[in-house]
Amino acid sequence: MASHKILLTEDEMPRQWYNILADIKMNPPLGPDGNPVSPDQLAPVFPMNLIEQEVSQERWIDIPQEVMDIYTLWRPSPLVRATRLEKALGTPARIYFKNEGVSPAGSHKPNTAVPQAYYNKEFGIKKITTETGAGQWGSALSFACAQFGLQCTVYMVRISFDQKPYRKSMMGVWGGKCIASPSTLTKAGRDALERDPNTPGSLGIAISEAVEAAVSDETGETRYSLGSVLNHVMLHQTVIGLEAKKQLEKVGEYPDIVIGCAGGGSNFAGLAFPFAQDKINGKQLEIYPVEPAACPTLTKAPFVYDHGDVAGYTPLLPMHSLGHAFVPAPIHAGGLRYHGMAPTVSQLVDEGLMDAKSVNQLDCYEAGLIFARSEGHIPAPETTHAIAQVIKEANKAKEEGKEKVILFNWSGHGALDLGAYEKYLAGELHNFELTDAEMNEAMEIFKNYPKPEHLKSR
Amino acid sequence: MASHKILLTEDEMPRQWYNILADIKMNPPLGPDGNPVSPDQLAPVFPMNLIEQEVSQERWIDIPQEVMDIYTLWRPSPLVRATRLEKALGTPARIYFKNEGVSPAGSHKPNTAVPQAYYNKEFGIKKITTETGAGQWGSALSFACAQFGLQCTVYMVRISFDQKPYRKSMMGVWGGKCIASPSTLTKAGRDALERDPNTPGSLGIAISEAVEAAVSDETGETRYSLGSVLNHVMLHQTVIGLEAKKQLEKVGEYPDIVIGCAGGGSNFAGLAFPFAQDKINGKQLEIYPVEPAACPTLTKAPFVYDHGDVAGYTPLLPMHSLGHAFVPAPIHAGGLRYHGMAPTVSQLVDEGLMDAKSVNQLDCYEAGLIFARSEGHIPAPETTHAIAQVIKEANKAKEEGKEKVILFNWSGHGALDLGAYEKYLAGELHNFELTDAEMNEAMEIFKNYPKPEHLKSR
Repeated sequence: MASHKILLTEDEMPRQWYNILADIKMNPPLGPDGNPVSPDQLAPVFPMNLIEQEVSQERWIDIPQEVMDIYTLWRPSPLVRATRLEKALGTPARIYFKNEGVSPAGSHKPNTAVPQAYYNKEFGIKKITTETGAGQWGSALSFACAQFGLQCTVYMVRISFDQKPYRKSMMGVWGGKCIASPSTLTKAGRDALERDPNTPGSLGIAISEAVEAAVSDETGETRYSLGSVLNHVMLHQTVIGLEAKKQLEKVGEYPDIVIGCAGGGSNFAGLAFPFAQDKINGKQLEIYPVEPAACPTLTKAPFVYDHGDVAGYTPLLPMHSLGHAFVPAPIHAGGLRYHGMAPTVSQLVDEGLMDAKSVNQLDCYEAGLIFARSEGHIPAPETTHAIAQVIKEANKAKEEGKEKVILFNWSGHGALDLGAYEKYLAGELHNFELTDAEMNEAMEIFKNYPKPEHLKSR
Repeated sequence: MASHKILLTEDEMPRQWYNILADIKMNPPLGPDGNPVSPDQLAPVFPMNLIEQEVSQERWIDIPQEVMDIYTLWRPSPLVRATRLEKALGTPARIYFKNEGVSPAGSHKPNTAVPQAYYNKEFGIKKITTETGAGQWGSALSFACAQFGLQCTVYMVRISFDQKPYRKSMMGVWGGKCIASPSTLTKAGRDALERDPNTPGSLGIAISEAVEAAVSDETGETRYSLGSVLNHVMLHQTVIGLEAKKQLEKVGEYPDIVIGCAGGGSNFAGLAFPFAQDKINGKQLEIYPVEPAACPTLTKAPFVYDHGDVAGYTPLLPMHSLGHAFVPAPIHAGGLRYHGMAPTVSQLVDEGLMDAKSVNQLDCYEAGLIFARSEGHIPAPETTHAIAQVIKEANKAKEEGKEKVILFNWSGHGALDLGAYEKYLAGELHNFELTDAEMNEAMEIFKNYPKPEHLKSR
């Protein structure tokens, strides 16, 4: 019988995360004064143990036993050979995917939520604040905080709070407190409400509220947490790729192409970085981050210094960015609607070690249906971006008659996104593509910003 | 490291289902004339290969290779040691659960949907009709039909169709056609609409519509499918218990108590029957089907002959029943709101081989929260009934200082039931318990019905 799933035992799980900072050169983040940010400047926002991890150059970092113990609630995740998808496409390619949808929150997000909660707890923190758009991250952090007895407060963008009540309920099940943003609890929130009492909110405002709530807690027992973009987040996610490598070894395979969807970059980096290390060391393979055509950070936007948030609270990060004032079109893959991209991913793309792709919304839902009807499991809208690219590559392999090995990250399930599929099936969705005029307008913001260097890691 | 998950490889999967009809004595189903029903009488409703399976006395029945191949999209499912739940309860009991929430539809239902679609396809059927209440079964059958290129039409109870759009969308993703019932497509539906144009519908009407749509298709290429109650459905589900047995053997364990929630009986039977076989053969263990106090089929209602549907289209089945006209209180565990119980489960309870329990709604949600906050994964409302009983038994083991081994079926995840949790957290849910007066009134229906014999299998 053809085996669909390649499993690891819990004893075979990686015991260390892979830190790509040991293998690449990076521009430093810059503070308000234009100089590199020091760890101390970040101390009111994050616990010092996570700040140390953010700047660490150690190649391998031990996964704490307490984190391992919680990881095993769903990890190691299955690596699956998508034989029924291959058959549906009639491709000679062998397609493998890492199923991160098996986590309690249904996506890869708990891979970093759990260690972040752990390190906060270790540092003596009692409460964590964060923001969430569609709710994936807020629910993952609520789950993680429940495991460590930490309080969790999530500022959720008002329009999502109203339109996606299930994610809010999920946070509640795990004891998380979900607050519609803008709220009256913070100055940032009150200012936003004064400007427009009926505002639908934005991720930018929600970040400002969450950061303000953390740094203004006078007990010093509250910190802020971010679910993507930062180095330590990418680090934690590498458990995905490290497991996948071991699983592929078991069946004597190595990927020709590694694919993941990319919003802030974390699920993509999690799968791809352990393979990127091989590429830095001379191995031949293709690595494709895939983003929406509506938010083409890597494929259209330049490598610049920009803020991670709309309000400009964060340091300037060296990254591909559409500008922190950019508002992406309302595609349903909420997790990919981010103006920037993780500095590590941006660096690797800038120096040509990865080749970014973009896909449009309708092709993504079509790909999602092809997948669901062949492999059964229904992917999240974000994940369909990876699948759309996989199908392109599988069809190319068919045309060329090549037995390529394609590996991709099935970053999450779509059970809470079925409304978007419903709209697609009813013909109510359409494509969005950024025009050159919109792009030029967005770029205005960078006129007086410092520019990062183009570095080479190999 | 304590291992949470006990895994089987795909090669270790059971290759046969266990048929409990080989080991117990059963009263026959009766036709309209009061005589045992012949297979021919069922031929317009089900394909003959499934009818043969329904009455087979073979102890072991081969699982077809095509079914195995689709099972491996999610099977073997993990057996999980709930160490974090044990710790939260401070119990010396060792608690194991079989995670059936990993299937594409999120529950155990595909275990029978896939073989039912397969046997229909083999028999030359092109289209399957069925009914669905909350939508679990309709979505599972849509998934299965997509795998075999069969058309699937699901009559969904109007009120659920309106209130639970996500399950309908899920069917659409897999190509299933979901119709609000009552519809104008069948005589049964038109009659119902004539009686009350604003009716919220009922499972009884939906069954009538689905059966009528199957038997009235003049091409002869349509059949009807049922997701619980019948012998062949229980048979297919035994893959759960057979896997669990192998998994427990790997860690040298055997359960003292086996627990599953029971509505029509299929997820419970799937886990319990392979262990019930051992008990029939003299092994000591407890087996508890758990039902809602609002619908106490096994714990309060008698063992009678009753119809499986409200309209009385089905043969009279020997089962515990509250009467086919009984309308259960609106608890949120839609899958447990059924007036009867699988004849096989009913027989085993009647002769004392299983000991039924009932739990109330609020205890169930409390149990669901305890589970979600310790083990992470959020259970379906149906599944929380099993968990509530598990927690009772674990606390009892603690009082008695006994190291009991408890095994239960985690029948499905609650991602599409988060609205019910939200209501629980907001204090909007309450308990329902059937009063003696309501019970007596319900029993009136059986006055002139034939009575099954009390048989003994050992």
